[in-house]
Amino acid sequence: MSATTEFEAALARSAEAVEDCLAGLLPDGDGHEERVMEAMRYSSLGGGKRIRPFLVMAGADMFNVSRERSERVGAAIEMVHTYSLIHDDLPAMDDDGLRRGQPTCHVKFDEATAILAGDALLTLAFEVVAGPDTHPNPDVRCDLALEMAKAAGAQGMVGGQMIDLVAEDHDFDVAEITRLQRMKTGALINFSCIAGGILGRATDHQMHILSAYAHDLGLAFQIVDDLLDVEGDTAVLGKTAGKDEAAGKATFVSLLGIERAREQARMLAGQAAAHLGPFDDKAANLCQLAEFVVNRRN
Amino acid sequence: MSATTEFEAALARSAEAVEDCLAGLLPDGDGHEERVMEAMRYSSLGGGKRIRPFLVMAGADMFNVSRERSERVGAAIEMVHTYSLIHDDLPAMDDDGLRRGQPTCHVKFDEATAILAGDALLTLAFEVVAGPDTHPNPDVRCDLALEMAKAAGAQGMVGGQMIDLVAEDHDFDVAEITRLQRMKTGALINFSCIAGGILGRATDHQMHILSAYAHDLGLAFQIVDDLLDVEGDTAVLGKTAGKDEAAGKATFVSLLGIERAREQARMLAGQAAAHLGPFDDKAANLCQLAEFVVNRRN
Repeated sequence: MSATTEFEAALARSAEAVEDCLAGLLPDGDGHEERVMEAMRYSSLGGGKRIRPFLVMAGADMFNVSRERSERVGAAIEMVHTYSLIHDDLPAMDDDGLRRGQPTCHVKFDEATAILAGDALLTLAFEVVAGPDTHPNPDVRCDLALEMAKAAGAQGMVGGQMIDLVAEDHDFDVAEITRLQRMKTGALINFSCIAGGILGRATDHQMHILSAYAHDLGLAFQIVDDLLDVEGDTAVLGKTAGKDEAAGKATFVSLLGIERAREQARMLAGQAAAHLGPFDDKAANLCQLAEFVVNRRN
Repeated sequence: MSATTEFEAALARSAEAVEDCLAGLLPDGDGHEERVMEAMRYSSLGGGKRIRPFLVMAGADMFNVSRERSERVGAAIEMVHTYSLIHDDLPAMDDDGLRRGQPTCHVKFDEATAILAGDALLTLAFEVVAGPDTHPNPDVRCDLALEMAKAAGAQGMVGGQMIDLVAEDHDFDVAEITRLQRMKTGALINFSCIAGGILGRATDHQMHILSAYAHDLGLAFQIVDDLLDVEGDTAVLGKTAGKDEAAGKATFVSLLGIERAREQARMLAGQAAAHLGPFDDKAANLCQLAEFVVNRRN
């Protein structure tokens, strides 16, 4: 196998492990509340590249953290990511009917169930992280809960989504788009990268390296997302293409143009990998992920 | 002052302290994300009896926990409570325009902002509880986060709201309504009661007493809510009266009748207070709260 195929196989194996972990953590109901649990499972299972959990696990591997622990944290982050997609897809938000090639949660169920499924996934993520199986040291679990909350809240992901909604009525420049994306998608990617370090009790210096990697990786990831929205095809993407342009939203691509945006993404991915130098061979998976992120087709 | 007036003054003082604590914990924004922060403040501040925080503080007082700590946990629970009201009031859910005598969040702002404000409040509650200022012992903070998540999630409050939505199409009996309310409102009231014990490192026996009190108090509280919905007046309630009947929902009152429901609430409140016997005089505030809950007018 070439290095790329080997990496893709590793990514697929890790996605499978997270899928199993999620399936075990998501509740089953026996009463009328079953409906919200079905919706949680519907949106969480059977899809997604699981890039965020991969970041947690590849990061944690560098500190010899057991996979049982890093998979749980990866699954919790995937719950937060899934909740954000469910709520962002609602009619009152981006009003989208397609996600991972399937009807979105509110289309498959209904709006009320989708709101509640998102709420319950966010809540469960904290239950998982704070639970004793995540790490024997409660300081580690509190740190994870605290950093996850900061990444997901009004000064992170939710704040970014708020700015994105306001953006439709404003002409944003590159600095503003960068700030928006740093909050909307960057904050949770950053938490995914540092979570491995928290689990592995990394030094401050090691945590700074992980954050620097996350910063550049997150922007590269977003620029590629914008490129795929312009160049991609709904069938391959599994979500509606051409949304940003239709909404008249400024993106990295509309501001920089396709060629400069692509160059920028490649430059950032290279820079992200370069930060990891001090980890040497141990960082191979994270380096390859940076490359994968700019070459992905969906 | 009579005992009642003294108790009401204590309740008002504690509500004021929680208000100050909330005001300090809620974020201010300086960018376009400001809108969601305004919505968080609008719905969280300036209203409510703050019964849940009072339960935390009165419980924690019995174990000589400092007020700075119990106020933070009380404020976090109030954030969870407020988020649940914001989401329950949404058009896709109960579609209500009035709350605490003011326009609901989605009426004052818009649906997208209301969804995000609820999401951010839930997230912030975990940030507060997991933060080092809540308690120096990280085991205590993890326990609080874990129990709060269980109370608020699909097997607690969110599951109860799901059942409540399904209830509109079903004829529920008293056992089913009891289960619904144990999840929808009881779970968070239970967490409020045991949070003081967690902060104060109560014994298992003391925790059981607090849970028994919470169980009966929660049901009494809900029955009175149902009575007020039938007998109350929108102006005094600060929220729309007569909603359950209009929605054709079975409630304790529709199933038991007004008189038996009122008797049942009184009986449960007395039983709640009786559980606290072993705490003697220390439990005076919790006992008086049980009485207050059945006599309240809104």
